[in-house]
Amino acid sequence: MTGDSRGDRLAALATEAELDCLFVGDLVRPGDSGPDAIANVRWLTGFTGSSGFAIVGEGRRDFFTDFRYTERARSEVTGDFDRETLEGRLVAELAKRFSGRVGYDEDATSVASLKKLEESMPEGASLVPATGLVEKLRRRKDPQEIEAIAEASRLADEVYEFLAERGLSGKTEREVAQSAEQRMRELGSGPSFDAIVASGPNGALPHAEPGERVIGDGELVVIDMGARVDGYCSDGTRTWATGEISEDARETYELVRRSQAESLAAIRAGVSGAEADKVSRDPIADAGQGDLYGHGLGHGVGLEVHEAPRLGKTSEDVLSEGDVVTVEPGIYVPERYGVRIEDLVVVETSGVRNLSSTPKDLRITG
Amino acid sequence: MTGDSRGDRLAALATEAELDCLFVGDLVRPGDSGPDAIANVRWLTGFTGSSGFAIVGEGRRDFFTDFRYTERARSEVTGDFDRETLEGRLVAELAKRFSGRVGYDEDATSVASLKKLEESMPEGASLVPATGLVEKLRRRKDPQEIEAIAEASRLADEVYEFLAERGLSGKTEREVAQSAEQRMRELGSGPSFDAIVASGPNGALPHAEPGERVIGDGELVVIDMGARVDGYCSDGTRTWATGEISEDARETYELVRRSQAESLAAIRAGVSGAEADKVSRDPIADAGQGDLYGHGLGHGVGLEVHEAPRLGKTSEDVLSEGDVVTVEPGIYVPERYGVRIEDLVVVETSGVRNLSSTPKDLRITG
Repeated sequence: MTGDSRGDRLAALATEAELDCLFVGDLVRPGDSGPDAIANVRWLTGFTGSSGFAIVGEGRRDFFTDFRYTERARSEVTGDFDRETLEGRLVAELAKRFSGRVGYDEDATSVASLKKLEESMPEGASLVPATGLVEKLRRRKDPQEIEAIAEASRLADEVYEFLAERGLSGKTEREVAQSAEQRMRELGSGPSFDAIVASGPNGALPHAEPGERVIGDGELVVIDMGARVDGYCSDGTRTWATGEISEDARETYELVRRSQAESLAAIRAGVSGAEADKVSRDPIADAGQGDLYGHGLGHGVGLEVHEAPRLGKTSEDVLSEGDVVTVEPGIYVPERYGVRIEDLVVVETSGVRNLSSTPKDLRITG
Repeated sequence: MTGDSRGDRLAALATEAELDCLFVGDLVRPGDSGPDAIANVRWLTGFTGSSGFAIVGEGRRDFFTDFRYTERARSEVTGDFDRETLEGRLVAELAKRFSGRVGYDEDATSVASLKKLEESMPEGASLVPATGLVEKLRRRKDPQEIEAIAEASRLADEVYEFLAERGLSGKTEREVAQSAEQRMRELGSGPSFDAIVASGPNGALPHAEPGERVIGDGELVVIDMGARVDGYCSDGTRTWATGEISEDARETYELVRRSQAESLAAIRAGVSGAEADKVSRDPIADAGQGDLYGHGLGHGVGLEVHEAPRLGKTSEDVLSEGDVVTVEPGIYVPERYGVRIEDLVVVETSGVRNLSSTPKDLRITG
């Protein structure tokens, strides 16, 4: 069992970490994982249900689920995995299948589940913290994965066009967010996260939820949204103006635009997440607005809308070929407005391939 | 600081459990809790964001969030809590505010977070497993909570009517599910979970996802859905026929109908979850179909769509006044069809108040 399948590469990482095998799966809400927590199992085995687990090691590719998903596992789980449906207490049954030094993810395991594992695993088995191994492999997207993300991004671009044509002014934020999500569904997709539509002063709140505020004329509106295709997410943001805006709002827009353009030009394999972040931050700091840019430059996107690597001041990640990351500087002027411009890009050896095509010249919508 | 507020009642429970204080919040994905994980904090403090934490003890009502939510906390968190915005590393900062014997939830704390807490908490503080205290109090719904759930259930009933009028036959399961969710949004609500629309043989799969199957004539269709109002969920299921169905499908329907009616008649405060389950199971077992009813009778519903108590064979819960629970027996005939009928009820001293009003006589839709 050697080769270049995902299971093979993970088994090699496990061996490198001196593990006999690695346990993969969500032991926080075992049997009812959230859509994000299932990403590792899905990437590794193809299984899309909410109760899937794997044990991978040299010569070992085991997949487990419960009775609800036996059929689905049969049709989805890739051929190199042996499938088993567990009956009885899920965590205890999984533990019984442990042997030797078993790596587990401390972030994906609750204290309660760790206790259950320790009670039920056989003599001779031991648990070894091993967090982030699958996530490390998931960073490098293969062509099929990039195509799914690119398609999700194209769909989101189509929805941006749809929104711009219909206009924003006079509608509530919530109405705009709902029509964006509805349009995605009509296009055969769905949102990868709850769309943010933040108008006027709401744009200055980094985590605004679309509300009953009616979008006025001459305001900046931040629209942050993504679609999902075959499980893969897109993520992008545009800030538009509903009519003429103040001179300083326009200058802020152009400053963010320049910060974003310079970041895009600087990113390529080998550049660190911290360096890329600095490129985006320098022009904003030089303009005396550094304090108004209170988040990092970007993050990886794939089966999860936030995944490795991270682009920010304290990031220790170095970008590499096949990373798919957001590039999203912003300036937030309290009680007045916010501007954020976000593209989704594939990191390549000599630069980036930009998956976002919605124009970035300041757009005046109705 | 004595009284009958939620904080007061929780502090009393903590004292009873010989704790100096109780920590409440999600330490699995701190700072980005899922919608369900935030339920305890929301119930206790009113805060609806994804990064909220509380410490409650005798004379202590502290609420914590991060910079993204300072504004929201100011408008949402109830007056008896002191609010603080934490800067820096969230888990470590929380730990610094621990003192004495601190209860924590082993299910809501990852192994990684437990380590961080232990590293950062002050001399003299100790962590004591204390799981489910808030969940216990959340069981008894007050009149406002019941009204929100009832309203969510009324909205879902309206959507059932909408679906029945439009007909099912000739549409794909996915189209029906999407139009149900879209209708909920138009009514100012939203789905409390992804709607299940399972037709013909798909109805026999307990966890079917609505797919591209076109619903035919003369089939049974299971529609399981709920709405959400002010954070509170509804949950209900109806099974309809698209035209004439076989004699045995009709008999199965009537058997589930009777099982459900007998369960509803048996439930009141003081009855155990296991007893209620048995009432629903007996008529199905008597008809020789016990093996085809592979799940429990029901579960609590509130801020989460699945919460305490549980109605099932192995449940140790005893129903009490103010519990809101589902009553949902089902029969699943492999490769042929499924029938499930589910109401949402409030447990009262002498019976139940049924929050579901969609008719249960076998409905023939187009």
